[in-house]
Amino acid sequence: MSLSTRIPMFLLRLLALGATVSAVVIMVTSHDSAQVFNMKFDAKYTNSPTFKYFVLMNAIAGGYTLILLFFPSKNSCGHMILVLDLIMALLLDSSISACVAIGQVGKSGNSHAGWLPICGQVPKFCDHVTGALAAGFVAAIAYFLVVLYSLHNVMNLFALKT
Amino acid sequence: MSLSTRIPMFLLRLLALGATVSAVVIMVTSHDSAQVFNMKFDAKYTNSPTFKYFVLMNAIAGGYTLILLFFPSKNSCGHMILVLDLIMALLLDSSISACVAIGQVGKSGNSHAGWLPICGQVPKFCDHVTGALAAGFVAAIAYFLVVLYSLHNVMNLFALKT
Repeated sequence: MSLSTRIPMFLLRLLALGATVSAVVIMVTSHDSAQVFNMKFDAKYTNSPTFKYFVLMNAIAGGYTLILLFFPSKNSCGHMILVLDLIMALLLDSSISACVAIGQVGKSGNSHAGWLPICGQVPKFCDHVTGALAAGFVAAIAYFLVVLYSLHNVMNLFALKT
Repeated sequence: MSLSTRIPMFLLRLLALGATVSAVVIMVTSHDSAQVFNMKFDAKYTNSPTFKYFVLMNAIAGGYTLILLFFPSKNSCGHMILVLDLIMALLLDSSISACVAIGQVGKSGNSHAGWLPICGQVPKFCDHVTGALAAGFVAAIAYFLVVLYSLHNVMNLFALKT
């Protein structure tokens, strides 16, 4: 891969690394508590399996990105890395979608199921989760672009050879 | 593309079509009602924006698959179709993840947020949603395989030319 194709890829991965690390940090540090009907209600990310899944997936994607940034691959691994990039894009997409679904219930509730919104009670927690979702969204977009750019490069590479 | 590479792709797309249509039909026909504290509780998919999103995404993926099955593309559109396949895989992945997150709350509730499980009251609704999720999962896997297989073919195609 030439330098001119490496630089945009490096920048995209750097963006993905920053976004995944931010998403993990913002989600893990989210905490708020409220007094509801004499019951102390402690909101933290470990309360929901979905938020734990979000943290895990962003941590995996961040670790993977870090490894690729510091140990640039040989060209021969290109196909395997493209498949791994695709899997990362899918995992990040999945984690963000699941969190948005839960966040929507947290914000608006669901009157049909009798689930009350909780963001009124724990606004600081909700703000943190929203921030983490925004960072996760940037990471997911960055990995989508990484996959598109890899595809473009792989096709160009082969086209040049012909 | 030769016939031997077309057949697996055709079968994968046929599987995806069957799965997305099943997911839409099972989700749309899900309905159950229960009497809770003298209040009639009607469970249907339109109660949740997440389930509506699931139906929409599966319908889009189903329609797209149908078009590709009946109007096979020219080779020159291969790259665009690969990108569209990738987008379908991401959309299906996103819809299934969001639904699993909501379904998990529906099944187990979330004691921290005070959200009670509802599957005990409306078991028929929950069974339908579970079935729709299973079909959606098959569709998402099928599209993941479509993308992997397309990648494999594109690379082989270029490799043969060199």
